[in-house]
Amino acid sequence: MIRAVDVIRTKREREPLTDEQIDWVVAGFTRGDVADEQMSALAMAILLNGMNARETARWTAAMIASGERLALPDVGRPLVDKHSTGGVGDKITLPLAPLVAACGAAVPQLSGRGLGHTGGTLDKLESIPGWRAELSLDEIGAQLSSVGAVICATTPTLAPADRKLYALRDVTGTVESIPLIASSIMSKKIAEGTTGLVLDVKSGSGAFMKTPERARALAEAMVEIGGAHGLRTAAVLTDMSVPLGRTAGNALEVAESIEVLRGGGPTDVVELTVALAREMLDLAGITDAEPAEVLASGAAYPVWEAMIAAQGGDPSAPLPVASHVEELRADRSGVLERCDALAVGLAAWRLGAGRARKDHAVQAAAGVRLLVDLGDEVTTGQPLLEMHTDTRDAVPAARAALDGGVVVGDGPAPPRPPLIGPTLRP
Amino acid sequence: MIRAVDVIRTKREREPLTDEQIDWVVAGFTRGDVADEQMSALAMAILLNGMNARETARWTAAMIASGERLALPDVGRPLVDKHSTGGVGDKITLPLAPLVAACGAAVPQLSGRGLGHTGGTLDKLESIPGWRAELSLDEIGAQLSSVGAVICATTPTLAPADRKLYALRDVTGTVESIPLIASSIMSKKIAEGTTGLVLDVKSGSGAFMKTPERARALAEAMVEIGGAHGLRTAAVLTDMSVPLGRTAGNALEVAESIEVLRGGGPTDVVELTVALAREMLDLAGITDAEPAEVLASGAAYPVWEAMIAAQGGDPSAPLPVASHVEELRADRSGVLERCDALAVGLAAWRLGAGRARKDHAVQAAAGVRLLVDLGDEVTTGQPLLEMHTDTRDAVPAARAALDGGVVVGDGPAPPRPPLIGPTLRP
Repeated sequence: MIRAVDVIRTKREREPLTDEQIDWVVAGFTRGDVADEQMSALAMAILLNGMNARETARWTAAMIASGERLALPDVGRPLVDKHSTGGVGDKITLPLAPLVAACGAAVPQLSGRGLGHTGGTLDKLESIPGWRAELSLDEIGAQLSSVGAVICATTPTLAPADRKLYALRDVTGTVESIPLIASSIMSKKIAEGTTGLVLDVKSGSGAFMKTPERARALAEAMVEIGGAHGLRTAAVLTDMSVPLGRTAGNALEVAESIEVLRGGGPTDVVELTVALAREMLDLAGITDAEPAEVLASGAAYPVWEAMIAAQGGDPSAPLPVASHVEELRADRSGVLERCDALAVGLAAWRLGAGRARKDHAVQAAAGVRLLVDLGDEVTTGQPLLEMHTDTRDAVPAARAALDGGVVVGDGPAPPRPPLIGPTLRP
Repeated sequence: MIRAVDVIRTKREREPLTDEQIDWVVAGFTRGDVADEQMSALAMAILLNGMNARETARWTAAMIASGERLALPDVGRPLVDKHSTGGVGDKITLPLAPLVAACGAAVPQLSGRGLGHTGGTLDKLESIPGWRAELSLDEIGAQLSSVGAVICATTPTLAPADRKLYALRDVTGTVESIPLIASSIMSKKIAEGTTGLVLDVKSGSGAFMKTPERARALAEAMVEIGGAHGLRTAAVLTDMSVPLGRTAGNALEVAESIEVLRGGGPTDVVELTVALAREMLDLAGITDAEPAEVLASGAAYPVWEAMIAAQGGDPSAPLPVASHVEELRADRSGVLERCDALAVGLAAWRLGAGRARKDHAVQAAAGVRLLVDLGDEVTTGQPLLEMHTDTRDAVPAARAALDGGVVVGDGPAPPRPPLIGPTLRP
């Protein structure tokens, strides 16, 4: 007979958990037979003593088995998905899904809302008048067939053990475990039923993983899980020490994404969107499309319009505008030497773009718009960025968050290209 | 502002907890503001990453502060107490408390009940008709003045944080942490208000600490806590690879203790009782008593009678006798080579002497009586021990527990004296 306390002791003594122990403890936790206090002790033991690749793959399988697997209909195109570990200004999903669909694949992008300084894809899209995140399985299938791209809310029936475990880890200091992070992400993606998955694993001040080494370890763990579950997986390591693009905020990022879809937009956003599209098309077996050309031509924009319209949104409606905009100005002449992702992310959060708790609302129009790029020359008094908010009182806190994070100096400031390593594959 | 998740993270990252963090988290846990799942994650982090001497002393102080401190009246004699980490056949408290009282000190021995294969002092005394464990503070004070010795139940107002934490550790695989064990024991003893404390720290198969090294580490941790709290403390390291004396069970151990109090009894029980009495008298500053002589003379027995009578017991009443007694016989001629403490303890437990859960009852008469000592020569068919029980069906499980634990071989079997190291002092 398996007992929770023996499972905990096994990991506490640095021994690998058996498949039976993992299946039992995850199923028992989902049902409530394994108490929260037992699972949190086990999570701490896993965080401190690790899990090997076999354990991590099995843990993922047990979390998938705690719920349903999405049975997506045959939509006549290969299914391929992308997941980002999250960052500041990371609106890549918005241009990427229509681009990959325009190139011939189908993209079922089940997404979440933001918490803390990183924005959520659904929060961004909800700044579009009329757009709705909740779709039925039938609606997802129909939209994949007709449009080729869906960005919608994940369903609570996928990997419920993960949702329960994540809530527990959040309050017990056990979030930062690579096997637990990897299995959390991969269980939802595998349950979602995609056949290919590209992972954008970020490192830097604005990312969850602060160092490239930790990001690489997480990427390797996820690629290994994908391999063990027969999911075609690739991982791209990217920089999150500076914000992506020039905006951090919901409507602000939608507007920037539309620029990109129309063939313009900031270089780094274009570069990362195209790189991820290439990986996704590669996994989908589509070799005759050139995503850089498709994006530059504006051919992905009609897919965006169709995708937004299919979910009730009006792609031509004006986006919300903040009632109050204030600038941060250069206190000296020189070169923009530092534009820290975490500082900008926290400022956007303070301005109302993010939430501190799950049940909080976000402001559609709040956020930060950068006016100069890293390495640009500026003169005293020149505006460096705009702070957008509907709550004027929030500006001092945003300024405090930016203090020391956006710095003009003597230069030079080396550029920070988004791609920082070769793609990892199984 | 202190947050539980930050306290957990501090220990997770192998940093020492601050005094403020410790005070806050223990008080919050006692009140229920720090959730069980948070405390269990912290307990696992403490188990795996340790606590230094300063943290452990502060943790102990915080657990003491969670409840009352017993205000014992001036009883005209120095107060000195003893604590054993528990073992099989460990009835030492029974002769020791009257002996030390007979030598001039006062012994307030607040004790617990047994769980698993180790017996509880209160369970043993409750086999005496009429004896009651629950005393009020006034009764404890009066008995210390009149008799000089009290063995009674601890009160729930002493270190309630410890009781709550122990229940949590029990189900979350976080019992085996030396700082947590040491602070658990010491918080109750310090709150009890004794001025001197002798610790009997056991190692071996029948003990909680399986190796002398672990026992020494626990002893050192407890002596250090005592020193930090101004409590005169000494620790004796003793062997628990064989049972103490020739009995394991409630009434059986009371009968053996009475033999010792009358000047007889097994050598190892006498030796350990005298050694602990010497340490207690030393801490109490009593230099003119010779406990070996007092015990051999039978002068402690009247104190025992008075102590039992003061708590409603009839010291002359016959002790309960088991309805069923069965022998284990030697399967060959030779030497008793092995008499494993854990095997005998488990057998006594199976026979009904111990409990598997806190709410279970124990049988007063159940247990094991050893008929030969380690190293004795025996012949085929000679009885090695008796199994006493009121539930005849329990005997096969007891025999199974003894299998391989009580072994006749070619010998020799070296003796196992109870004392295995020099006394540890601050």
